[in-house]
Amino acid sequence: MKAEGKNAVKEALTAGSEISKILIQKESTDRALTAIVAMAKERGVRVTFVDKRALDRESVTGRHQGAIAYLADFAYCDAEEILAEGPSKGEARFILVLDGVEDPHNLGSIIRVAECMGVDGIVIGSRRAVGVNETVIRASAGAAAHVKIAQVGNINDFIRTLKDNFITVLALDMDGENIAKADLCGDVAIIIGGEGKGVSRLTRDLSDGIVSIPMFGKVSSLNASVATGMAVYECVRQRKNK
Amino acid sequence: MKAEGKNAVKEALTAGSEISKILIQKESTDRALTAIVAMAKERGVRVTFVDKRALDRESVTGRHQGAIAYLADFAYCDAEEILAEGPSKGEARFILVLDGVEDPHNLGSIIRVAECMGVDGIVIGSRRAVGVNETVIRASAGAAAHVKIAQVGNINDFIRTLKDNFITVLALDMDGENIAKADLCGDVAIIIGGEGKGVSRLTRDLSDGIVSIPMFGKVSSLNASVATGMAVYECVRQRKNK
Repeated sequence: MKAEGKNAVKEALTAGSEISKILIQKESTDRALTAIVAMAKERGVRVTFVDKRALDRESVTGRHQGAIAYLADFAYCDAEEILAEGPSKGEARFILVLDGVEDPHNLGSIIRVAECMGVDGIVIGSRRAVGVNETVIRASAGAAAHVKIAQVGNINDFIRTLKDNFITVLALDMDGENIAKADLCGDVAIIIGGEGKGVSRLTRDLSDGIVSIPMFGKVSSLNASVATGMAVYECVRQRKNK
Repeated sequence: MKAEGKNAVKEALTAGSEISKILIQKESTDRALTAIVAMAKERGVRVTFVDKRALDRESVTGRHQGAIAYLADFAYCDAEEILAEGPSKGEARFILVLDGVEDPHNLGSIIRVAECMGVDGIVIGSRRAVGVNETVIRASAGAAAHVKIAQVGNINDFIRTLKDNFITVLALDMDGENIAKADLCGDVAIIIGGEGKGVSRLTRDLSDGIVSIPMFGKVSSLNASVATGMAVYECVRQRKNK
């Protein structure tokens, strides 16, 4: 992953992202570049001064403005690690599975919910879905560094693995059982569908059941991260107030 | 309220905002302006063609690009109407009071939660807080048109009114009672604090109690609209599953 341009490089530095090195255009008098060099020095990030042609060659966007930072790719974990997380804490498992969440702000917000509420981890399908990028990390308010996140090629294969491990798989969607009436105290995975589309048909069919947030309005569609927040809250409430 | 510039005017039209009229620069060959005129015609919005000087005169931002739409101001209701809403439905009152929510996306998202979950209404303080503007309306996904929203000059005066009406006032904040243990089945108002700052000191002191979402993470701060979603969910859960 590369961050290109003065603002993006500065943000990567202030956000505390893992940066392997920064290229800066040599013999530039741009004050913003000087500030970046100072910030990098303070954080102990290696800076290399190169000529404009070298930057042009390295640039993906073509708009580097004299600065490119090389960011470490997000460190996804293995889905197996998430399966092991609950037992390692001596608690029932609680896993979120994202089926096609495309908005990076929603993903960031879901990661923040998961971290705050002590979810074991998040499993993201790699198709039709946003991965953990810089926008997501920023939207998670730093939570992405503290919660296990795995990426799997096929959500439905992973759901079969969950079921083989005796984990109850529930899809959060419309027209299901009131989530407050479902028993969420055992090992459980909740599937969150994509914005607008919801949980895909096959995934719904594979699930052990559908749970819903009861709604009473005229618009009647909650934002994906708010609905996830409510479902996670309900699960934690049941477990802690048992 | 005016929407200025081609994109803003187009968005106001597609979002279904109430528009009293649109000014378009005459003798322009800009295709985007032609498209706006067609959209306005379809929606039955009056279009007046004027010369550039007239647009310059009317423009607040100075960047009208040949198009200005006059939007109806958001129709706030009276706080009294919100107090009457619960009794008119034969239900216990449930009011949200926002103390310094500044982010328009958070406000929009809170409005959406309130509408979906059947909250009586939202009361917003007019100081240090965002009002209902175009960004908020867009973020509410249309919910702003279906939920009562009032603006009051002094939140604390309004809290005294709530207490005079025997409505239990609870501040949603850190270090309070577990919200799942609080009785939310009677007439209740929940105060939501601003991003980062939380509920202000005096407002906290005026409240009948502090309630919290129990958290278990390292980052431990939920987004204001997600926390509101969880609190509203808990209130509705208690009432419907009584």
